[in-house]
Amino acid sequence: MGSGIIAVERNEAGIAAAVDALAARFGDRFSRAMAVRLQHGHTTSRIPNQPPDGVVFATSTAEVAETVRICAAHRVPVIPFGTGTSLEGHVNAPGGGISIDLSRMDRIVAVNPEDLDCTVEAGVTRKRLNEHLRDTGLFFPVDPGADASIGGMTSTRASGTNAVRYGTMKDLVLALTVVTASGEIVHTGSRAKKSSAGYDLTRLFVGAEGTLGVVTEITLKLFGIPEEIAAGVCTFPTVRAACETVIATIQSAIPVARIELLDTLQVHAVNNYSKLGLVEAPTLFLEFHGTPEGVAEQARRFGAIAADFGGTGFTFATRPEERTRLWQARHDVYWSCNALRPGWVGMATDVCVPISRLADLVDETIADVERHGLVAPIVGHVGDGNFHLQPMIDPDDPAMDAAVDGVVERLALRAIEMGGTCTGEHGVGQGKTQYLDREHGGAMALMRAIKAALDPDGIMNPGKIFAMPKPVAAEEPGP
Amino acid sequence: MGSGIIAVERNEAGIAAAVDALAARFGDRFSRAMAVRLQHGHTTSRIPNQPPDGVVFATSTAEVAETVRICAAHRVPVIPFGTGTSLEGHVNAPGGGISIDLSRMDRIVAVNPEDLDCTVEAGVTRKRLNEHLRDTGLFFPVDPGADASIGGMTSTRASGTNAVRYGTMKDLVLALTVVTASGEIVHTGSRAKKSSAGYDLTRLFVGAEGTLGVVTEITLKLFGIPEEIAAGVCTFPTVRAACETVIATIQSAIPVARIELLDTLQVHAVNNYSKLGLVEAPTLFLEFHGTPEGVAEQARRFGAIAADFGGTGFTFATRPEERTRLWQARHDVYWSCNALRPGWVGMATDVCVPISRLADLVDETIADVERHGLVAPIVGHVGDGNFHLQPMIDPDDPAMDAAVDGVVERLALRAIEMGGTCTGEHGVGQGKTQYLDREHGGAMALMRAIKAALDPDGIMNPGKIFAMPKPVAAEEPGP
Repeated sequence: MGSGIIAVERNEAGIAAAVDALAARFGDRFSRAMAVRLQHGHTTSRIPNQPPDGVVFATSTAEVAETVRICAAHRVPVIPFGTGTSLEGHVNAPGGGISIDLSRMDRIVAVNPEDLDCTVEAGVTRKRLNEHLRDTGLFFPVDPGADASIGGMTSTRASGTNAVRYGTMKDLVLALTVVTASGEIVHTGSRAKKSSAGYDLTRLFVGAEGTLGVVTEITLKLFGIPEEIAAGVCTFPTVRAACETVIATIQSAIPVARIELLDTLQVHAVNNYSKLGLVEAPTLFLEFHGTPEGVAEQARRFGAIAADFGGTGFTFATRPEERTRLWQARHDVYWSCNALRPGWVGMATDVCVPISRLADLVDETIADVERHGLVAPIVGHVGDGNFHLQPMIDPDDPAMDAAVDGVVERLALRAIEMGGTCTGEHGVGQGKTQYLDREHGGAMALMRAIKAALDPDGIMNPGKIFAMPKPVAAEEPGP
Repeated sequence: MGSGIIAVERNEAGIAAAVDALAARFGDRFSRAMAVRLQHGHTTSRIPNQPPDGVVFATSTAEVAETVRICAAHRVPVIPFGTGTSLEGHVNAPGGGISIDLSRMDRIVAVNPEDLDCTVEAGVTRKRLNEHLRDTGLFFPVDPGADASIGGMTSTRASGTNAVRYGTMKDLVLALTVVTASGEIVHTGSRAKKSSAGYDLTRLFVGAEGTLGVVTEITLKLFGIPEEIAAGVCTFPTVRAACETVIATIQSAIPVARIELLDTLQVHAVNNYSKLGLVEAPTLFLEFHGTPEGVAEQARRFGAIAADFGGTGFTFATRPEERTRLWQARHDVYWSCNALRPGWVGMATDVCVPISRLADLVDETIADVERHGLVAPIVGHVGDGNFHLQPMIDPDDPAMDAAVDGVVERLALRAIEMGGTCTGEHGVGQGKTQYLDREHGGAMALMRAIKAALDPDGIMNPGKIFAMPKPVAAEEPGP
């Protein structure tokens, strides 16, 4: 395993005391059942499950604050839990501690159509939010693969297929309610669209993976559901031709809503799993949002650009059933990869680079995958330079395990080398801690200083982002 | 004065030692001339000028780091200086110290047209950047009133008329080079469009007003210059009707590039100063960007919405000279206000609220202004709920001074009360420190903890954002 998981000293006495206090306070909303604890450890990838010592099912910010205060009093780790769909071990408890399950905090607190914003509790999932919003004519665009919770999406700085047009969680979170490491309830930001009034604490908690506090309420920007939506597919002779088409499309200010690259193997996987009948070659999936005239113009302009780079077969459809079929296939990519090799396990990883380097990176990665005889489809939010590799691993072949680790590691380092990042949207968790020094250099000292300032006892989701958490039963803080 | 300026204890011995060291190191690029020092104190509003003890004209990040290390060794304040156009006293030296003038750091380090980004040194001004970019077909949209430096715009989280479409500095800064309080050079972010790899230090330094470090290089997102640009004007019976038109326009997803509200008095001022001949009533200035077809469609759809709310006289022009005339008038608003009362002094302030509250806030503010017999035009980036009030003050009338302070204070408090912020884009500086506790509540403790962690000796631009800096000659840090 190249995941950089560190064994963390357990504070046995503190954990025992916190467990007793939480059981007394929360009764049957506190669980120590092993099945529940295992569900609240990591369940989605090869990272080993490290269950918490107990799970609190919180129903309000005040209850989260109470839980954190109890844990803080005993110096016990606190691990926030949304839907558990993280791919990098964010919900594991390497030093034990208490998982706070926020799924019952699922109230939609307010929707303000005039201001195009809403406030939700952390446990609301993205699909439920959009179902709730439908009648208002508004939607929230961030769509990671899973039906993740808004709290989890905030904490991992999630994005998805719409980010090229609408932005990521970084761009769309206006304000937060956060429970700090000492159990205080604070509010960051406001419903104003912009502010210059002090440090941007909102953006500090977005992507902090629960290591600075627990996000319990989120105010989000919303958008009007477009009058017209058109989906399209276009085939290219090479990955490079597809990438050059994307660059030219973005440069031409065509406000494409989605533009996704699938490599040949991924198209093959999608054809098999979702019965699409696409030409098996590098392919772009597209979506255009706007008025009927606007969408037609965008599609026409894109088609002209694609043709310049050898794109063929560009067609687009506005009928909902056709669009849905295409994008359901896109969202089922994870499953389509798994179906390529039944019984094998997929290991999804993501990186992001300046778009001018994307073709190089994809080409080098495909060559690396082939050199090692692996099966690893590629799909990417190519408008942002972000892409996913999903190597498949035969659980009975330990050599394949090591080969995949090598490919994943070289991919991360190559992305950093190209001026990019080791993760565009999955987060660091436990799986990518080992790349941060390389990516951030001296800036890591600032991150550590902030962590120490806001969580001096190191109880907030230890072992995530930073590979070496301070042992939770430490004596005195150093100078 | 309601500006909350605090006298800060001067570290005389440290300042003397730092001045000697800097003079020896920088020769004639270090100035102690009183004229130079006064130019580097606050010069743009009623906040008193508090000059630094000396000014270093730095030419590289390494020189900034050297300067900070010398100041840090002697616990002497460091105040970054771009163009000095801040309206809230950001460049003042309330405890003395060293101003680092970054205006000679004016290299455009790189422009990457394929990636739609560029990297510039902090002293590059926004106009110079756009002149440099013109031949590439790209532009950088953030446009505060002044021809500010990109470093200053980063540090105050600036925005301007294009923010409704293109975002503010928060949205458009990808990466930074920063000199920390100990004189280390660190890099935050990357050229990747998105990342989930650790804390968002970039966003922490954007808007930190130099209180956490000195920003020396900035990587910015760029945009293609639109194929077609159309400017328009529309008159409304009331401020409320104009605001409702804006809300409906944004809800309809018309991608308006600029939408600015001028109240009746402001239109009168603009007519006088820029000879525009507009109907003197609440007015929207607009700009549409896109293809010729797209722009025409946007304007047509806006016109229909405006008519629903009683808007009249909507016309739009695509000829550059007409557009330029209109937007030059908008950018000259500051001067047009001053021209309303020659010899008086304008006091520009800004707030931002959820757009649904904008009409209430403008109406209440106009009533407050009239109740006190003041002259105070309003102009606003109304698509974001952000607006500026510019009360005019007769320097010979101390009562007017107090009355203006009252109006400005009530405006800030009213904006906070409405779920907004005491400043949308000007920053806190010295002028708005007194509102932050009201706006942020318990979150201020987190801001103070971050400040203490990254600048333990309190030398980075003390007296800004936080009203009570730690005295710079303090003995030992507390527990």
